[in-house]
Amino acid sequence: MTKFEITVLGCGSAMPTTLHHPPSQLIDMNEKLFMVDCGEGTQLQMRKYQARMSKLHSLFISHLHGDHIFGLPGLLSTLSLLGRTADLNIYAHKEIDFLLNPLLSYLGNHMSFKINLFPLNPNAEEVLFENRTMQVTSFPLKHRIDANGFLFEQKESPRHINREMIDFYHIPVKQIQEIKNGADYLTPDGALILNEHLTNPGNPARRYAYCSDTAYAPEIIPYIKNVDLLYHEATFAESERMRAEETFHSTARQAAKIAAAAGVKKLMIGHYSSRYSEIGTLLKEAVAVFPHTELAVEGKIVSL
Amino acid sequence: MTKFEITVLGCGSAMPTTLHHPPSQLIDMNEKLFMVDCGEGTQLQMRKYQARMSKLHSLFISHLHGDHIFGLPGLLSTLSLLGRTADLNIYAHKEIDFLLNPLLSYLGNHMSFKINLFPLNPNAEEVLFENRTMQVTSFPLKHRIDANGFLFEQKESPRHINREMIDFYHIPVKQIQEIKNGADYLTPDGALILNEHLTNPGNPARRYAYCSDTAYAPEIIPYIKNVDLLYHEATFAESERMRAEETFHSTARQAAKIAAAAGVKKLMIGHYSSRYSEIGTLLKEAVAVFPHTELAVEGKIVSL
Repeated sequence: MTKFEITVLGCGSAMPTTLHHPPSQLIDMNEKLFMVDCGEGTQLQMRKYQARMSKLHSLFISHLHGDHIFGLPGLLSTLSLLGRTADLNIYAHKEIDFLLNPLLSYLGNHMSFKINLFPLNPNAEEVLFENRTMQVTSFPLKHRIDANGFLFEQKESPRHINREMIDFYHIPVKQIQEIKNGADYLTPDGALILNEHLTNPGNPARRYAYCSDTAYAPEIIPYIKNVDLLYHEATFAESERMRAEETFHSTARQAAKIAAAAGVKKLMIGHYSSRYSEIGTLLKEAVAVFPHTELAVEGKIVSL
Repeated sequence: MTKFEITVLGCGSAMPTTLHHPPSQLIDMNEKLFMVDCGEGTQLQMRKYQARMSKLHSLFISHLHGDHIFGLPGLLSTLSLLGRTADLNIYAHKEIDFLLNPLLSYLGNHMSFKINLFPLNPNAEEVLFENRTMQVTSFPLKHRIDANGFLFEQKESPRHINREMIDFYHIPVKQIQEIKNGADYLTPDGALILNEHLTNPGNPARRYAYCSDTAYAPEIIPYIKNVDLLYHEATFAESERMRAEETFHSTARQAAKIAAAAGVKKLMIGHYSSRYSEIGTLLKEAVAVFPHTELAVEGKIVSL
């Protein structure tokens, strides 16, 4: 199977602590590196976990709160110091212009590559990037300011040729492409060999959804239905549910309810409030509702 | 003696490494905390070394290269989240306006305190802050863009009353203030007791100079003459002297030459290029010229 790997660079929230870094994740899909959010120190975390900056394909910013964007200036400068030449696409809400442009114009003449800013639609689902094998979609979350979630998808791949059966039937090379495309094979003596005997199943579709920051919002369920992994913020424990409502964040239990209702395979929670030096309670409260829950932690890698 | 303590938060240079953080230092003068430079991750380093954010008095930015300023947005946001109410003075070159204002206007309504930006004079010495016991001065360095060094000074304090001698001569309370101010004492039987017998020496003046980033520049010597501690950048080893010249940085040997010519008591070098995983060479090259040299390292505290 092609690579589909999520690396957690930071899973804290607004107030920095010695335990957690501000939000950022890397999604490696078949050697293309996508970044979601870029809190202060993200480039230092990339160094620490030996992520290859040269593979960075594009950046997705969920919303414009400081803990999700303050690592951008440093990362962009460093990419330029490293001599990057490929364009870098940044998908973020339109006000990012206003925040980044002074910096970019200040660095302007010294930047080695071009940055393309693409505005996110805060009100509807939208495909941001697509090629033959993968797709990235954004969808609305529910936060104090415009915020979007992201769905990373590796498409189902075509069935693979079963080399042994090809040899067994002495199938001519020129017909192999047709079989790859789904054709059956008619032998010289008139027997029909069905395609499923000549090929093995391709990679199944795999999907990862990132939802942070967001209040408890059942309206996001259609966007994340049945994903293989859901990252959902769980800023607070149930004892702070009122505080979660006021600040448009979720409790661990609410994250688990969303995961259960969406029928996801696995849930990873994060974006922990700085008040928790011990996050075992958050895990316990989530697992009670949705057993396949795990905690995000800096440096963690999840393979799909 | 009153506190005069320098804490190194970061002593790397433009390119981040796993060994060094971007530049920042804290200077604690009698419980007032002054920050010099604020590279990305500075607030995280403050947490790590348990610096008290509430004591932060003002910020001094040597120049507007990214590695010296990219920690500002995060630090300012966090101070606001912590509910700071006292004004914060930031001393930096005037273009900081242009870089910080979009962010400040974006955060505007949510900031709990006021920021005052004071432009540095890149061409002449200037007193930035002064009270009865301390003073901060800026002076020009020599870099690719405007850059200033800073001199932190605790003034000589008046002589202290020697309680035992006061008791011995039964000196009336009302005369003690005069003696503090330097007066001698005439006993009832006409003997003159000199002030130096009635008082002990006060704190001597102590001075710390911060010079980064700068090319080798003997013209800075008058500003840093005889300081107790000089921090001078030493980005490169002697083998990269041409590179140092091209980029307006110094070698460790050049830093030591400045220290020797200025007659400083002690030299601390830092701002190491990312190319050095081992900085022993830099120390060796500096010590050969100026023996009282030490290496900056994250978390190091020097007391004057």
